[in-house]
Amino acid sequence: MGIRDISHPGLYTDLYQLTMSQGYFRTGMHKKPACFDYFFRQAPFGGQFVVFAGLADLLEVLESYRFSKDECNWLLDKGFDREFCDYLSGYRFDGTVISVREGEIVFPAEPVLTVSGSMLSCQLIETLLLNILNFQSLIATKARRLKLACGDRKLIDFGLRRGQGTGAIAASRAAAIGGVSATSNVLAGYRHNIPVSGTMAHSWIQCFDSELNAFQKYADMYPDTSILLVDTYDSVGSGIPNAITVAKELEERGNRLLAIRLDSGNPLELSRKARAMLDDAGLDYVAIAVSDQLDEGRIVSLMRDKAPIDYFGVGTRLITGHPDGALSGVYKMSWFGDRPTMKYTDEPSKRSLPGIKSLSRVSDEDGTFRHDIISLKKTGSSDPEADSDGPDGRDSVNTQQFIRKLVMQNGKITKTTTDLSAIAGFSSERTDRVPEPVKRLSNPACYDIRINQSIANLIDKLKQKV
Amino acid sequence: MGIRDISHPGLYTDLYQLTMSQGYFRTGMHKKPACFDYFFRQAPFGGQFVVFAGLADLLEVLESYRFSKDECNWLLDKGFDREFCDYLSGYRFDGTVISVREGEIVFPAEPVLTVSGSMLSCQLIETLLLNILNFQSLIATKARRLKLACGDRKLIDFGLRRGQGTGAIAASRAAAIGGVSATSNVLAGYRHNIPVSGTMAHSWIQCFDSELNAFQKYADMYPDTSILLVDTYDSVGSGIPNAITVAKELEERGNRLLAIRLDSGNPLELSRKARAMLDDAGLDYVAIAVSDQLDEGRIVSLMRDKAPIDYFGVGTRLITGHPDGALSGVYKMSWFGDRPTMKYTDEPSKRSLPGIKSLSRVSDEDGTFRHDIISLKKTGSSDPEADSDGPDGRDSVNTQQFIRKLVMQNGKITKTTTDLSAIAGFSSERTDRVPEPVKRLSNPACYDIRINQSIANLIDKLKQKV
Repeated sequence: MGIRDISHPGLYTDLYQLTMSQGYFRTGMHKKPACFDYFFRQAPFGGQFVVFAGLADLLEVLESYRFSKDECNWLLDKGFDREFCDYLSGYRFDGTVISVREGEIVFPAEPVLTVSGSMLSCQLIETLLLNILNFQSLIATKARRLKLACGDRKLIDFGLRRGQGTGAIAASRAAAIGGVSATSNVLAGYRHNIPVSGTMAHSWIQCFDSELNAFQKYADMYPDTSILLVDTYDSVGSGIPNAITVAKELEERGNRLLAIRLDSGNPLELSRKARAMLDDAGLDYVAIAVSDQLDEGRIVSLMRDKAPIDYFGVGTRLITGHPDGALSGVYKMSWFGDRPTMKYTDEPSKRSLPGIKSLSRVSDEDGTFRHDIISLKKTGSSDPEADSDGPDGRDSVNTQQFIRKLVMQNGKITKTTTDLSAIAGFSSERTDRVPEPVKRLSNPACYDIRINQSIANLIDKLKQKV
Repeated sequence: MGIRDISHPGLYTDLYQLTMSQGYFRTGMHKKPACFDYFFRQAPFGGQFVVFAGLADLLEVLESYRFSKDECNWLLDKGFDREFCDYLSGYRFDGTVISVREGEIVFPAEPVLTVSGSMLSCQLIETLLLNILNFQSLIATKARRLKLACGDRKLIDFGLRRGQGTGAIAASRAAAIGGVSATSNVLAGYRHNIPVSGTMAHSWIQCFDSELNAFQKYADMYPDTSILLVDTYDSVGSGIPNAITVAKELEERGNRLLAIRLDSGNPLELSRKARAMLDDAGLDYVAIAVSDQLDEGRIVSLMRDKAPIDYFGVGTRLITGHPDGALSGVYKMSWFGDRPTMKYTDEPSKRSLPGIKSLSRVSDEDGTFRHDIISLKKTGSSDPEADSDGPDGRDSVNTQQFIRKLVMQNGKITKTTTDLSAIAGFSSERTDRVPEPVKRLSNPACYDIRINQSIANLIDKLKQKV
């Protein structure tokens, strides 16, 4: 998925994590206990929810977290102390991670994931953690919005060529978690067992003396899986009639043309024309795929107008999380040594919640999520809140359930699902349980997040101290 | 840079490149000569130019282009022919590439880079090529716009945590080409020899019993390179006064505080207050760094208001190319077998220029670029146009010069600059020569691009044939 290709992820960080870590090391603070929460302040795309993604990749990278000898020498060269560089060369991540499951639906201000351990361990991994979780959660959320827009029609990821470099591999993975059925990205398919799918390019058509001949040759090779691109010359005047001819020839041989693809022009008008032409030819089973700058807004319009489109191919706007481009998730210290901490700042909106917290969710009898509760954990309890939850991670109805689990203890993965289709299935079930007004694509309602009085009291106490 | 970490980049592609390639292979068309151009139709960010970036990475990946045995077996499993999979397992990229230099300023419709070779070679690499060039060119262009906005002030890349996964490594590289002075991204610094830079996080401050103590401990460690973050509690009431105390203590020891950093609040007002407070304390040498959702628009405003800011730290909006997120560069076939080809489509804006072309640039006496010319190359000439240009790639004044060179021949790199600071220097010089109205950040003028009559004639001829 990209990050796993980096054999020594230690340097995959902001410089200040290393300069601060050297400071903790020199002052002897590096072994003091600390606790950091990952959360976001605002959901992207004008929405109210986020699909949490990237956990399996994060945990795998943390387990193999290393600095190579070369890298340590380079740091030495950059002015870091020899003692600190020696320490890094033998360093292994030894923190503990409590997290919601990958694919879970989460909301603003919630401590989605909490890292505890030595101050050094918590600090070193900040940038790496944010880079992985922010991006995959952004794309999973975008995919879920597209899926909410297109209902039972299929979504296909065509984004690789417009992806942000190798980030596209993680993006295709996250898109699958969010509800995309297949990807054109072969490497993502190979690595993450995502179904791969594709059509044909204009260059194929241009290599033949005629469009019909190009279609025929392709259909000969892929008699039951061909999706013919009909807009190279003129969709209605040439592409669709030629596709119909080929479909009829396939029928004679006992095969079936899978679909045609429209890639330019007005998709509503063209899909209606294409559907009518195909149906008139007795080809009601030939599906229609549409691509070309699709977004959830355009898909909602097409669905409202009952456009006869079976597959939506989404590229740029899915793979880059357009128009936001980033989830502004942050990772803030909530505990240091023997005391809770918080970020104050001049801007109240940038403050964080202090203390070691738990996150629970209350559901209605029919399973609909009603509200979430952020509380302080009882001090002295060494049990991760996750242990209170059942082993399968499902909520029982109408009760308050902790939704985070212990996923890594002292640097070792304790529990994680890496099967992408299981994660996608879980995410889809959880989405079904989000109240309709909260998952509405435009002007959604806020989800009810209750911050326990104990936290409010703690904030007051800490403020007074400052 | 991410992509180079993928040991076998063959699968880093869209599925249809492989299904089509199998088609070329089966029909014996795979060895026919072809030619593809990389170009974009519209510059991003409402601008008129693009900084071309990603070339060195692309060429290196093409030279090591491979499919692993495992990958070929997986393709076999997905239904590809054994013969074709065997062919792929021994396949090496053997195409020829002509390109403008990395860092060059290029304009819409221009054939920035042309790949020629067998049909199979040209087709297989399409997605890989687009993914690398589109993204790095997007970010280099964004960085250049930010640099144009901030003039002689320094730009620092703080984007890694909000980057699109591992794409952030290539993004930091591209940002350096576009004019960013330093990056917080340590791995990008290590790999591409970019200066690394950083400040401190709020967590550092929170680990101490007081902000002053936190500043003092940091300054002890980094007596001449500290940038103190002053907004943890209250910038004006606490952070700046404490930074001044520390700066004075450093002075007594013969050291100098490098800078303070403002990360929230109104940057114009706060930077003015901070400057006045520092100056009053006799600390006119202490610089002011500002971060927090900066973009070229906000920087232009701050510069117009003469905000006393020395370093602009740019994160999310630089590293993700906000608000566009992708450069819509395409790669279209212009020649196949013994004839020129073009894409027609229902939308004229999506058409391509047929034939094997050259790209030249005419400059004024003072070196300002006047216009570019896209022509057809003389058929029968086996010389790449690049050979007509001088060995150092500089234009002589007031003449028409070809601006592309042969950079890869039959799969082997012939000429490429990998030194990032040389590429950045070249890019900066070229930017200086773009007419002011064309590089204006808002409502820029179009650059004059002349498409030779021979191409117009060829388009007419090909249209008539269709």
